[in-house]
Amino acid sequence: MGAPMASNLIKAGCDITVWNRTKSKCDPLLSLGAKFESSPARVASSCDVTFAMLADPESAFEVACGANGAAEGMAAGKGYVDVSTVDDATSKLIGKRITSTGASFLEAPVSGSKKPAEDGLLIFLTAGDESLYKRVAPLLDVMGKSRFYLGDVGNGTAMKLVVNMVMGSMMVSFAEGLLLSEKVGLDPNTVVEVISQGAINAPMFSLKGPSMVKAAYPTAFPLKHQQKSKAGAGPAESVSQPIPTAAAANELYKVAKSLGLADQDFSAVIEALKAKVQSSQH
Amino acid sequence: MGAPMASNLIKAGCDITVWNRTKSKCDPLLSLGAKFESSPARVASSCDVTFAMLADPESAFEVACGANGAAEGMAAGKGYVDVSTVDDATSKLIGKRITSTGASFLEAPVSGSKKPAEDGLLIFLTAGDESLYKRVAPLLDVMGKSRFYLGDVGNGTAMKLVVNMVMGSMMVSFAEGLLLSEKVGLDPNTVVEVISQGAINAPMFSLKGPSMVKAAYPTAFPLKHQQKSKAGAGPAESVSQPIPTAAAANELYKVAKSLGLADQDFSAVIEALKAKVQSSQH
Amino acid sequence: MGAPMASNLIKAGCDITVWNRTKSKCDPLLSLGAKFESSPARVASSCDVTFAMLADPESAFEVACGANGAAEGMAAGKGYVDVSTVDDATSKLIGKRITSTGASFLEAPVSGSKKPAEDGLLIFLTAGDESLYKRVAPLLDVMGKSRFYLGDVGNGTAMKLVVNMVMGSMMVSFAEGLLLSEKVGLDPNTVVEVISQGAINAPMFSLKGPSMVKAAYPTAFPLKHQQKSKAGAGPAESVSQPIPTAAAANELYKVAKSLGLADQDFSAVIEALKAKVQSSQH
Amino acid sequence: MGAPMASNLIKAGCDITVWNRTKSKCDPLLSLGAKFESSPARVASSCDVTFAMLADPESAFEVACGANGAAEGMAAGKGYVDVSTVDDATSKLIGKRITSTGASFLEAPVSGSKKPAEDGLLIFLTAGDESLYKRVAPLLDVMGKSRFYLGDVGNGTAMKLVVNMVMGSMMVSFAEGLLLSEKVGLDPNTVVEVISQGAINAPMFSLKGPSMVKAAYPTAFPLKHQQKSKAGAGPAESVSQPIPTAAAANELYKVAKSLGLADQDFSAVIEALKAKVQSSQH
Repeated sequence: MGAPMASNLIKAGCDITVWNRTKSKCDPLLSLGAKFESSPARVASSCDVTFAMLADPESAFEVACGANGAAEGMAAGKGYVDVSTVDDATSKLIGKRITSTGASFLEAPVSGSKKPAEDGLLIFLTAGDESLYKRVAPLLDVMGKSRFYLGDVGNGTAMKLVVNMVMGSMMVSFAEGLLLSEKVGLDPNTVVEVISQGAINAPMFSLKGPSMVKAAYPTAFPLKHQQKSKAGAGPAESVSQPIPTAAAANELYKVAKSLGLADQDFSAVIEALKAKVQSSQH
Repeated sequence: MGAPMASNLIKAGCDITVWNRTKSKCDPLLSLGAKFESSPARVASSCDVTFAMLADPESAFEVACGANGAAEGMAAGKGYVDVSTVDDATSKLIGKRITSTGASFLEAPVSGSKKPAEDGLLIFLTAGDESLYKRVAPLLDVMGKSRFYLGDVGNGTAMKLVVNMVMGSMMVSFAEGLLLSEKVGLDPNTVVEVISQGAINAPMFSLKGPSMVKAAYPTAFPLKHQQKSKAGAGPAESVSQPIPTAAAANELYKVAKSLGLADQDFSAVIEALKAKVQSSQH
Repeated sequence: MGAPMASNLIKAGCDITVWNRTKSKCDPLLSLGAKFESSPARVASSCDVTFAMLADPESAFEVACGANGAAEGMAAGKGYVDVSTVDDATSKLIGKRITSTGASFLEAPVSGSKKPAEDGLLIFLTAGDESLYKRVAPLLDVMGKSRFYLGDVGNGTAMKLVVNMVMGSMMVSFAEGLLLSEKVGLDPNTVVEVISQGAINAPMFSLKGPSMVKAAYPTAFPLKHQQKSKAGAGPAESVSQPIPTAAAANELYKVAKSLGLADQDFSAVIEALKAKVQSSQH
Repeated sequence: MGAPMASNLIKAGCDITVWNRTKSKCDPLLSLGAKFESSPARVASSCDVTFAMLADPESAFEVACGANGAAEGMAAGKGYVDVSTVDDATSKLIGKRITSTGASFLEAPVSGSKKPAEDGLLIFLTAGDESLYKRVAPLLDVMGKSRFYLGDVGNGTAMKLVVNMVMGSMMVSFAEGLLLSEKVGLDPNTVVEVISQGAINAPMFSLKGPSMVKAAYPTAFPLKHQQKSKAGAGPAESVSQPIPTAAAANELYKVAKSLGLADQDFSAVIEALKAKVQSSQH
């Protein structure tokens, strides 16, 4: 997802330096005029503000704090904006390490997947250094359609988690409806259409419903990430907030993973409610 | 809900005759020019098409098939459109009785509550006699924004049930998110705003979220009806379709009922996830 | 299950008259000295007390109240003891019909399946006419190891439902433990043994655990009956008592049914937690 | 729980040296003839085999690996048996540290609470060094009624977790049954009695049922530990094993904690199913 975000910045006339473990992945950006540096550290030292977009907490930590990591190139006056989705603990570790260099840190997980990234319609859930937030606001507005400043580091991650939790439960509820409708003799496509007319219409339903009916799950948001983020609902555990539907939904994401669907779109969770039946053919 | 629907028909220039157990409830419509008849039977005999909107299956059956019920005034050439939400069995019984008079029957439960009814923005989920459907289409278009013809009697009811089931689970998932966000130190109003920007944005969330945060539940769709319609998810039972999140959600609606919230808006189900905590003050 | 119960009565020296839709099923009992009558009505008129054991509410109602049903042979002074497991409504209908003849009625669903029936170790959950209860107590003691008198008709059924509900959830919980242990590299047979040593040891676990590990489900209590009785947990619905684990368990029994396991032992519900995984082989 | 275990060893004629953060807690044991040492390290160096029983993973780690921890007193030929219930990771860390001294390590979490500890009826779920297992077997037999050797370190912890998970779900299922019975007009004490007669009879039900009916929860196994161990059901998460009833039960333990019942017996979880109703009195 980093690529479309970067190319939007380039198109907006920003002067960009990029790095990726696999240099070839940067070629499209280089052809658009981006410079390349051989390590996160060198990117950080050559730029005022560094954006990091990694797939998981481990890589996010490595790229920021590891050998030749961004931190090594950071210094007072510079800013580090981590737009990856990581857990609370990792985000705080990264923040500590970055600020220890005198640089300022902003946690900024995004809500939205591939398509919104390409269209510059992401939503930034930021937390951390407020002046850095104000400083990068124009850049966030190039890559996204809205941005929230949520206070202390950790709040961006928490907000992302809450929204993902609700999204995960909604997807399962929607899947239950599609399958039930089919079993009672209705056309699930009509269900998608009826829902699209009413109070529960959500873009996600209109976008994924038709392909779900066709049992196609082109990956926009990988199922394994949804499942992980729910597991991440450790917050609910620690604050003792009951989340019965999210808990029930998570059981289904586990099933979907065991069905080998971890890398497909999280809408593939519908197979977990079907598989049971298909199994009767064993 | 019958009143706003009828007044929209009157405003559209239709010639209307009304009946209600409590005559006074008809006064506003009479002042708009509606006629009054002393029984469903007399309404039916004096009109080409009769619309019935009742609060529950029992009354829907009584008004159609009871003493002085609509059936007694029905005859070949006439049409009976039941826009109440009833269970499958009741709807079929009513259909049988009505058609036994030579009249035609259309089941047409609506999706949408008070406000959409007033604004003529209801969604009609019809099933039964297709020629009657075509005949009343212009009237449905006066009262609603869209209409679906779903085939045999029972399919309208089934569709309504599926949509309500998904809606009920979504509401609980949303409530879980709002309460979790608060417990981890986020502003639930911001959660509502963030959600309104993204893929899971649904009119229901923007409409009810802000009042849910204030613990206010002005009744649009009574909680007891949501709970009933889920209980009605007997279909899922009979076709053996697992609906884990709907089942978990239903447990919460039961709790909400036991909290005395049956007549408040179904968004009051959030109290069922809170009550537990408030109880700690015992 | 009626056969072993009857043969225990015969062995105890009781003078028995039997009837079954399929006469041949009575042969073993006839060879033990039982008489045969050609209808429930004739059995009832020729005996002081009539015991009825049917597979489902429909047959229980038919045999008691249908054409040539027991009621037709009932009269003041006679007693009717229904040991079938039926729903509250059916039981009350049967009771009304029987007592309308002047006879007395006792609802007496049994806890225990085939084996306990053969060994005379059933548990009778009786409700209704207390004097009839006292009168048949010696007979119940021949067929069972304990008996409870629970008051008004309906309470026996309710007690049976509650016990079955707990049993159904326990079986799923046990199945979850067996499968989880296997996945984390433990021997599920050892889990069965460890459990048999501790506070949660229940005869059901020791009895069914070993065969569950072998994926064998010799039918003692058919899965479809367990699922039905949970569905019967309509009581929980009507009194708004949350039963989250029973609700979650019921979703699994539905899955098991859709896997074609309705007629196997209810312990086959473990397949519903496995099927998901097996499905990954699709 | 360490005290009753130690006193059983003393009564059996073993030569015991003890340590506790709070020396006074050791007085009863000293009066029975136990020696006292001022640190885990000194206990370890003065004994052939050291048993550790701590309340949580943190203390278990501290006592074994911290300053003046047991490891400092360990050496080849000595044995360390950790009978605390800790998570997989902690147990392995302790094992590594202990064995690094040349000593051998046995993980041996116990199944059973206060009473069984006093009566020498604990169940040991051991894993790790098999020769140490054989060496301490006679001591385990003094403190417990049965012992299992489960292989590599981690398996004892895993077994404990699985058993606790099943126990936690069973307790909630039982609580659902007790409350439902009361709501439908049955005497919950009779439910306890009926259950005690049948296939689902478990010592836990007979032991805790009567006090649960009286809403009394004398702490044998603290609710917070049950909830924690479920949270620990991370294994189910990592191996993607669906555990729907355990997940639903866990939501209730969270509620119970938020009701301030963390330190009462885990049977207090029944309040989580009640509280909801009590709240209606707000």
